[in-house]
Parts: sequence; structure tokens; C-alpha cells
Amino acid sequence: MDFKIAVLAGDGIGPEISVQGVDVMNAICEKFGHKVSYEYAICGADAIDKVGDPFPEMTFQACKHADAVLFSAVGDPKFDNDPTAKVRPEQGLLAMRKKLGLFANIRPVQTFKCLLHKSPLRAELVENADFICIRELTGGMYFGEKYQDNDKAYDTNMYTRPEIERILKVAFEYAMKRRKHLTVVDKANVLASSRLWRQIAQEMAPQYPEVTTDYMFVDNAAMKMLQDPCFFDVMVTENTFGDILTDEGSVISGSMGLLPSASTGESTPVFEPIHGSWPQAKGLNIANPLAQILSVAMLFEYFDLKEEGALIRKAVDASLDENVRTPEIQVEGGAKYGTKEVGAWIVDYIKKA
Amino acid sequence: MDFKIAVLAGDGIGPEISVQGVDVMNAICEKFGHKVSYEYAICGADAIDKVGDPFPEMTFQACKHADAVLFSAVGDPKFDNDPTAKVRPEQGLLAMRKKLGLFANIRPVQTFKCLLHKSPLRAELVENADFICIRELTGGMYFGEKYQDNDKAYDTNMYTRPEIERILKVAFEYAMKRRKHLTVVDKANVLASSRLWRQIAQEMAPQYPEVTTDYMFVDNAAMKMLQDPCFFDVMVTENTFGDILTDEGSVISGSMGLLPSASTGESTPVFEPIHGSWPQAKGLNIANPLAQILSVAMLFEYFDLKEEGALIRKAVDASLDENVRTPEIQVEGGAKYGTKEVGAWIVDYIKKA
Ligand SMILES: CC(C)[C@H](C(=O)O)[C@@H](O)C(=O)O
Ligand SMILES: CC(C)[C@H](C(=O)O)[C@@H](O)C(=O)O
Repeated sequence: MDFKIAVLAGDGIGPEISVQGVDVMNAICEKFGHKVSYEYAICGADAIDKVGDPFPEMTFQACKHADAVLFSAVGDPKFDNDPTAKVRPEQGLLAMRKKLGLFANIRPVQTFKCLLHKSPLRAELVENADFICIRELTGGMYFGEKYQDNDKAYDTNMYTRPEIERILKVAFEYAMKRRKHLTVVDKANVLASSRLWRQIAQEMAPQYPEVTTDYMFVDNAAMKMLQDPCFFDVMVTENTFGDILTDEGSVISGSMGLLPSASTGESTPVFEPIHGSWPQAKGLNIANPLAQILSVAMLFEYFDLKEEGALIRKAVDASLDENVRTPEIQVEGGAKYGTKEVGAWIVDYIKKA
Repeated sequence: MDFKIAVLAGDGIGPEISVQGVDVMNAICEKFGHKVSYEYAICGADAIDKVGDPFPEMTFQACKHADAVLFSAVGDPKFDNDPTAKVRPEQGLLAMRKKLGLFANIRPVQTFKCLLHKSPLRAELVENADFICIRELTGGMYFGEKYQDNDKAYDTNMYTRPEIERILKVAFEYAMKRRKHLTVVDKANVLASSRLWRQIAQEMAPQYPEVTTDYMFVDNAAMKMLQDPCFFDVMVTENTFGDILTDEGSVISGSMGLLPSASTGESTPVFEPIHGSWPQAKGLNIANPLAQILSVAMLFEYFDLKEEGALIRKAVDASLDENVRTPEIQVEGGAKYGTKEVGAWIVDYIKKA
């Protein structure tokens, strides 16, 4: 293939891990005979500082004309104490999602043996957990009609049939490629929007007769994920519930710092780590680049380049096995590798493979 | 005092545990010289079967004219497969909340040593957890304008200033009585309604200078509760977020089956276990009555009758210590006590105290 990649490094540790992602992308393209070119674009607090907009038009254009976006992280503490500030880095995220039509956020929840001790859950509960959260990302209260004055405020949790159908289609298709078990999470005992979700899921389920589809209320899902995370294979839900459940899912894995995600939809897909911009670590060469590197694996897999993805995953597993790890996951007494050193080791592994 | 109690036993194991709650109520009243009388009223699936309404007018009247409601549980599997059915037991719950103006749902999250092994969390993380979730219960998407047709649906997450002020007042006051730490949970980086919550909390905080008030996004709160549950003292949030977070909170404690709750507001307060109606166990004399019994402790404490509440708690702790336990929490080889036997033991303890 001939890849055009838009690189959005963003804030905090973003630029450092971005470099490692690009290096891995290059190594794989070289090995497998793909061409790749990059367009670098600004976003987040960085873009607010430079042009006053966290997702400026030129960044949008760069994304739009790329085959994929390699995104790192946005967010800066100087915006944290005032969630009502007019311009905020997160708005860049929301604008990117909306403008690129990224309606499906795909988050694999996976454990790494060497990180199981980081899970707040008992190891025996979580060690075999392996599921995917699919979160609708461009609808619901995030984008519905809003109102606020000094005496009242509201948000509208609105979904249309096409919005629900397209995300459920993604979910059913993921289930088909996996263990064929889909859990539709809603609050159909209370919400009209959830009832429409459930109705449409029930209409679509017969088209996927091999998939076992079950329905769960969001409060039960929040509990089930703790009590029996291995129950889940593919879980799908609306935007706001997904915001909460995907974060809960990543924390139970203990592997939060290593998990990538994909956001896909109407135009260019975006691949990014699930972790944030960790401003305190900026420039210290201590951030773990693995989530970013695994987001490159997801990128290749998205284009059905399975071998490419598999080699990246193999390299990551090898680095963990060989204790080539950044400080926060290094075993006691083990050598501490920096962001760059871990990235370089993985590139090297790929080249030699 | 001269208590008038409305008793709503409901469905499944409800009637069995209700009896134990009433017996404990009687024992305490006798010991401390209070008078008590009961009015029994139907609700839930039971009331649907009998009069076609899960919270009929006569039940409402019984509640309205009582000093407190002792509620057990509602829900029947025959309604479970169709969340869109016209009449459902849960509607009774919602009607009760709205008609009695029960805007504050108070759920202590507390661990019992002998149940720590039931927590999905590592014992060392959760053993000292002791916090209170305060959930707004009569606003937000549960009661906002709804619409649904075949092609679109919406719910409105609406809050007015007085609704927010009164629940925050409850939260600040709880914090004053406890460790003086309040966490206001919202999604102010996305939702207009959350921004109004946060604005009002910031306006009110100076009236409680001793309280440390912090603000947390709901996705972060869902993670923090797992990573560091001891961080929390009092947490307050809106209805839908509260639905999810309170369930998450009770499951991490490992003590779900033992936790009571109170719903308070404009008129008669309601005291109930947080667990459901467990239809499979109905009539088997195996349901744990402790959550119901502890809800009686909350009832006395609500009326500032601290000694009465403390004696119930002491009796419950003693029953656990003496291994007088229902099957699901009995240690291996220990004698298994039934619902009635545990209740009788506690009544006996109170009488002898
Ligand atoms: C930063 C915020 C707007 C965003 C969201 O709520 O979607 C984040 O929490 C996420 O999950 O990507
Ligand atoms: C049964 C349901 C309507 C209810 C709610 O969502 O409030 C329940 O989950 C609860 O938390 O009491």
C-alpha cells in the first residue's frame, strides 16, 4: 500500500510517543514493502496556543486527505480548573470526531500478564479478560441540543435510526470476527433512546444468527465488568455510557498504559492510545510508547494487513518478556528504559524479524 | 417517638426480609420505649397482578401518611424480557420516587471484614473503603421530556437550580457530619447540565468552609472508585451517573447483599436494601435479611435516634462474628442459618442487650 498518514502529536507526552509510533510505522512499511508519507498537524492545547483553535481547519484538511490519522494525546493542566472556559483542548477532540464522522470508538480491553498486578481486580478474575468495547462517538448528549442559563440547563440524548444501525452493524461484525457474543448495553427500562437502541438491535440480530446477542442495563454492565469481565466478548453502547464503561474496562485490565484504540466512521480512521497527555512527564523520556505503538498495529489491521499488525504485537510482547520496559512497569531491579529506548528496541526487533 | 411505618414488601424475597425488618423495628421500639404501628401496602409486580398498577394510589396514600416507609424489593422475571412493556414493576419505583419527592438517594458503601473476599477488588485496596454516594433521584433523563418513534428517540437531561441546590445541600451536610470531603461528580467538559451543577456547587462551597470540595468527571470517578476507593468520603452526582456509580460502589465493597439505602426528600423517607427481589430464592428462607435490617438502622438514624441505630449495627456485627449467617456468606463448614433464624437471632440479641 501507499499510506498517507496525518500525524497529530498534540500535548504533553504526545510528541514523544508519536515519534515512536512513526518509527514503528516506517519499520513495518519498509519490511513489508509499503510506501508511507506523513503530514504533521497541530491540535489540542498546542493548537490553541498557536492559532486559537484546538482542531483548526488545516488540521482537519490534513486528516481528511489522509488514509489514517495517528493521534497521540491532548490536554494541558492550564485548562483543567475551568471546564467552562470558552476554548478547551477537549473541544478539539469532539470537533475531530464530528468532522471526520468518527462514530465508532473501538477499545480492546486486554490484559498483559506482566501488568496483572496493576489491576485493582483480583488477578484470577481478570487474567483471561479479552473484550472489545464499542462506543458510539458522535451522537447522544455529547452533540444533542444543549441549553444553559443561570437557573436551568439541559442536554438532549438524541439518536436517530441510521446512527444506531451503523454502530450496531460495526458491533455485530466485530462479534462475527471474534467469539460471536454481543452485549448491547442500554437503560431501556428508563430511557426512550435506549428503547429505540434495543428495538433496532432486536431487528438486526436475526441477520447475524451465529451471534449470541444479549441485552444488559448499564448499571448491571458496570457491575458485571467487575464481577465477571470474562463474560464479555463485544460490548456496544451509546456515547455517554461508553465514556464511563470504556474507562472502567481499561482500568480493570491493569494495562491502561498499554491499550490502543481506533475511531472509525465516515472518513479517515484515527488510531490513538487510550491514555492522556500526562503533562507532568513531558520531555522526561519516561512515557511508555507501547499504547501508541499498538495503535499502529490497529491501523494495519484496519486495512486488513494482519501480518503487519501481528509483527508489531509480537515485538511488543517480546519487549515485555525481555524486560525492556519503561519505569512504571519495570520489575524491581530491572534496567529502566526510556521512551526512545523502548521504541528503538521494537524497531530493531521488527527489522531483524 | 410514635412511629407510623408503611411497609412495602413487594416481590420475590421482599416479603421474607420485610418481616425481619419489622421484627427488628419492634424489638428496638420496645427496648427504647417508642410506639410503632404499621400499614401494609402493595407495590411492584405484586400490585400489577392485583390492581394493574405497580404503585397504586392507596399505596401512595399509605406512604404519604406514614413517618417512614420500610421498602423491600420489586421485580419479577416475567417482566424482564420486555423492557418496553406498558406496565412494569420498575415504574412503581419511579412513581414512588416522584410522588414522594424522594430527590436524595443515600447509599453508604461500606465493607464488612468477613465479606472482603467477595469483593472483586484486591482486599488491600478496598478494606478501608467507607464512603457515601448521594444520587439525585427525581431529575435528569429519568424524568425529562422523552420522545420515541420508529426513526428517532430522545431523552432530556434537564436540571433546574432548585433541584441542584437541594441535593447539593444534602451532600454538603453529609460531608460536614463525616470526614468533610465532598466530591462532586459531573461531565462539565461536555454537558451543559453538568456545568450548571458545577457552577452551583462552586457558589455553595464557601458556605461550608470546613469541607474540602473537589470536582471529578464521571469517567474519572468510575476509575478512581476502583483504583483508590478510600479517596472518597461523600460523593454526589445526578440521577443517571448515580445509577451507574452507586452500583459500581456497592459491588466493590463485596458487601452488596448487606447494604441498605435511604431515599429522602420532600415527604416520607424510604428505607430499603440496595439488592433486588431475587425471585429464584423466593420462599426458600435463604435470603440474607441484613440489608433490610440495616435499613431499619438508617431509619432510626434519620430521626436522630443514634443509639437505636447503633444497637442494630452492633447486633448485625455480632451475628457475623458469631457466624450466624445465611448460606451465601457462611464460612466453610459453618452452620447455615435461614432468613428467619438470622432475624430471630438479632431480635434476641437486641432484647438481651
Ligand atoms: C475529554 C472528553 C471530552 C472525552 C470524552 O468524554 O469523550 C474523553 O473522556 C474520552 O473518553 O475520550
Ligand atoms: C430499576 C431501575 C429503574 C432503577 C434505576 O435505574 O433507578 C434501579 O436500577 C435503581 O438504581 O434503583
